[in-house]
Amino acid sequence: MYNINGESNMVNYPNGRKSSWAHGTASAGGRGMALEKDINVTNGSYLSDDTAVIHKKPTPVTIVKVDYPNRAAAKITEAYFKIPSTTDYNGIYKGRYIDFEAKECASRTSFPLKSIHLHQIKHLDAVVRHGGIAFVIVRFVEYGENWFVKAESMIDFYTHAERRSIPYEWFRTNGYLIPENYIRPVDYLKIVDRLYFSKGGTTSDGV
Amino acid sequence: MYNINGESNMVNYPNGRKSSWAHGTASAGGRGMALEKDINVTNGSYLSDDTAVIHKKPTPVTIVKVDYPNRAAAKITEAYFKIPSTTDYNGIYKGRYIDFEAKECASRTSFPLKSIHLHQIKHLDAVVRHGGIAFVIVRFVEYGENWFVKAESMIDFYTHAERRSIPYEWFRTNGYLIPENYIRPVDYLKIVDRLYFSKGGTTSDGV
Repeated sequence: MYNINGESNMVNYPNGRKSSWAHGTASAGGRGMALEKDINVTNGSYLSDDTAVIHKKPTPVTIVKVDYPNRAAAKITEAYFKIPSTTDYNGIYKGRYIDFEAKECASRTSFPLKSIHLHQIKHLDAVVRHGGIAFVIVRFVEYGENWFVKAESMIDFYTHAERRSIPYEWFRTNGYLIPENYIRPVDYLKIVDRLYFSKGGTTSDGV
Repeated sequence: MYNINGESNMVNYPNGRKSSWAHGTASAGGRGMALEKDINVTNGSYLSDDTAVIHKKPTPVTIVKVDYPNRAAAKITEAYFKIPSTTDYNGIYKGRYIDFEAKECASRTSFPLKSIHLHQIKHLDAVVRHGGIAFVIVRFVEYGENWFVKAESMIDFYTHAERRSIPYEWFRTNGYLIPENYIRPVDYLKIVDRLYFSKGGTTSDGV
């Protein structure tokens, strides 16, 4: 029932960014790495002071061939990126299951829906139905802004929109600007606190 | 405070099992693949009838080199297995965060502690402290038995034991035999129900 037509089963890496990472250390196709790094730093801070236990999942790859140059180390010599079947991040915070996807957006005007795979949307929907806290973090690179969008809002747009992208203004109306600081560059649990744990309750889902 | 001494930082793949998977499709070092497959089937069943949303995390690899034989596909030509920083499986069930590790045991008499990395034990401990449901599934291959062990019990053994392995008898006393059926070969949520959701409560942690 999602208005996402024509989603390809191919993983379209490197998606026009070949030169920047073709021969270096690669991660998730090299897209959105600055945001990923900032979230990893933030999660590391949450972990180290025992605020939350939230990790990025490894990049899914299909391993085809493994060689053994010596007894100590196995070397993977042929593997391919897979489309993720879930989101990139999950964990636990104040007893609640946390699950989210994070994407950078190069455009100043809109966020392309194809940035998020249909099965990721379905996954976020399932998480919400099972009582978890699910959301998407979108960085508008040009503005240096990180937006927190509840999965419910994102799914609603997917389900009803005629457009293939979400206008920037929609984020200003439906999203929450995530505060940043040096220790926690994307301090998204501040928004989670406000939306899900305000008024001392731990079961409120209200905004 | 864990009595795990001498844990190596090396990933000791293939750990003497080279011939069985050296040139086939590899996964997590090829160890425990039958159990992994059975749990994946079980999780698939939980997912398809909307019982729970629990997935195996991808095998963590460090990607060093990526080539582009054509525009459509990126080919990873050099990568290495990483030690997992967390457990293999997590997700959500009845609003609760679920987190577990699964290991096969070839011995008839005991389960070697080195099968589980120290940081995985620390991770399970953190999950419990934050209100999640954490456990370990151990398959004694020779007996065809899958044992559910609460993380708390496993951590307690790690912390206090002088031994480097857990005797099989310990599992019979401290573990719970996981029921199996064709649809769900490792139906571990049956044990979760019994331990965490009995008497209609959803917040009981009691056994």
